[in-house]
Amino acid sequence: MKNITIKDVANKAGVSVGSVSKVLNNKGYVSKETREKVEMAIEALNYQVNAAARSLKASRTKKVGMLVSYISNPYLMSIAKTIEDSLRELGCHLLLMSHNEDEATERELLQLIMEQRVEALVLIPTGGNREMVQTVINQKIPVLLVDKKVEGVSTDLIVDDNYYGSYESIKYLSSLGHSRIGVIYGVTKNSVGKERLDGALDAIKDLGCSLDESLIRPGEFDSEKAYKSATELLLLPNPPTAIYCCNNTMTTGLIKAINDRGIKIPDDISIITFGDASQWELLQPPLTLMTQPLKRIGVEAAILLKNRLIMNEEYLPKQLIIKPELQIRSSCASPKVEVRD
Amino acid sequence: MKNITIKDVANKAGVSVGSVSKVLNNKGYVSKETREKVEMAIEALNYQVNAAARSLKASRTKKVGMLVSYISNPYLMSIAKTIEDSLRELGCHLLLMSHNEDEATERELLQLIMEQRVEALVLIPTGGNREMVQTVINQKIPVLLVDKKVEGVSTDLIVDDNYYGSYESIKYLSSLGHSRIGVIYGVTKNSVGKERLDGALDAIKDLGCSLDESLIRPGEFDSEKAYKSATELLLLPNPPTAIYCCNNTMTTGLIKAINDRGIKIPDDISIITFGDASQWELLQPPLTLMTQPLKRIGVEAAILLKNRLIMNEEYLPKQLIIKPELQIRSSCASPKVEVRD
Repeated sequence: MKNITIKDVANKAGVSVGSVSKVLNNKGYVSKETREKVEMAIEALNYQVNAAARSLKASRTKKVGMLVSYISNPYLMSIAKTIEDSLRELGCHLLLMSHNEDEATERELLQLIMEQRVEALVLIPTGGNREMVQTVINQKIPVLLVDKKVEGVSTDLIVDDNYYGSYESIKYLSSLGHSRIGVIYGVTKNSVGKERLDGALDAIKDLGCSLDESLIRPGEFDSEKAYKSATELLLLPNPPTAIYCCNNTMTTGLIKAINDRGIKIPDDISIITFGDASQWELLQPPLTLMTQPLKRIGVEAAILLKNRLIMNEEYLPKQLIIKPELQIRSSCASPKVEVRD
Repeated sequence: MKNITIKDVANKAGVSVGSVSKVLNNKGYVSKETREKVEMAIEALNYQVNAAARSLKASRTKKVGMLVSYISNPYLMSIAKTIEDSLRELGCHLLLMSHNEDEATERELLQLIMEQRVEALVLIPTGGNREMVQTVINQKIPVLLVDKKVEGVSTDLIVDDNYYGSYESIKYLSSLGHSRIGVIYGVTKNSVGKERLDGALDAIKDLGCSLDESLIRPGEFDSEKAYKSATELLLLPNPPTAIYCCNNTMTTGLIKAINDRGIKIPDDISIITFGDASQWELLQPPLTLMTQPLKRIGVEAAILLKNRLIMNEEYLPKQLIIKPELQIRSSCASPKVEVRD
């Protein structure tokens, strides 16, 4: 394929190269008519990628930093991969680092990232280090926060609607007839963990489910801790007929606990998890889940990043809150016997 | 815990700080007696980590690069995580990048890595770019190759014994009475893929199994391609009684193909895979596999790296070939009917 240049766009639009440049960079005056001609030519020639590469040429370091909590987390690595693929189209490489949810490490790495002269930073934050994150932004390095906010920092952001996902999960179980619903929740000092727990608790209250506190147990986003809490739930004198688990890692522990006790899903108990579908592909019975559109999160993140890299002008931070989707499989069924509280 | 210093070691050993330094850096003359005293003091105080950090202090950039094929590969990310944890003890951060098995990308990233002034590089190579890898080594950046060799480059290396693992997998199936064994193999221009196929083919010949070529099919280390080849195997007029699959990604496709046709493991067909165990944790029936000791690979890699970072003297490259282990679960059984070729 021929490499489309700004000159081709100008020819196609019947305007000067200077006018195309003005439109691309959103700088200087062009008439509405000229702008439309240029935009149509850009679309007809599918010019955006080359335009991006071109406008970036001057001060490229070709590096975008990405700082995640854990490189061993397949959910985050899937998002990272989509972002990386997209950045490669702009000739950029992704430099990946991890802070392991440790604020001191995050601080050191943010320092290191500033020294690297990256063109942008994608950050899955610990939630701390507000001032340091602000310092990065002040140095004119675009920062995109993914998965979690940093309180008091205003920048581009993509997060799940965690509250909604939890609320809807409980609502679905309730619609099947469950009223004694167990919840295994994550780390609540973390905004993701807190929002997911809040959504579940509010739904339990709103929908008139059992308010028995022994049904709500911590799993700390950890498989073994979830195994322990799940076992406790299953051993209750009056156990739940359904369990909602706030992430995939904990759900691994939950399923092990259920298997170890010879309990059948969904005949004896229904389960639903908040998380990505790909890791459950071969599980029998297939798992019902509230799933994050991972591909979409990666794609949206890449678009936000590209815009920051391409545009010369500053614009207000964009914040995307992405709603997870209920994916109904066969791990949930109506309870066999209505258990009264 | 009190921070142990070089002075504490000197006091404990009853020698000068200079003598301890000589022992630590393996430089200059110290008597055998002094060396022993220092080594005992180091052991008694458990001093190694601080010593490492100390001897590195002078010219630290605190960065170690790691260049992998895919950041979305859980096997590689698990190794990376172990290496990262170990490097953190030396105050080093891991910078992760990926080349997606593309030699041009690998070349660009090797260039970028040299500019970064990393203290060392862990490389899962594409197998190409021999000269460029040699250039990195010539720049006195220690390079550790993991998973794959680069022909003609002499440096520290950790690889699986792929040939052995495949050979032993077939041997195990043969010992159960299988003689029509299907094989789904990976990309053979890649040394890992080639060694695994060779091991399987040699075992099939040596052990007198069926040499029917229609039993040996490509999966290109890809789930969908393996699904296709697995389906073809299952539809043969005289299908195999067992299938050996050369990696986990392809095994996902194999299991889907088996499930989609309603065939039972291990009653109707036995399967065995070469790969890490962790991703099969919840699979029923549990999968028999030839498994890489991932933790050990990560730990050994970290030791090799640490030695390069700490030692001031050069030494000959170390090459570790790690044997995978057969982990017997219930996805293999003796064939119901002896099928003759």
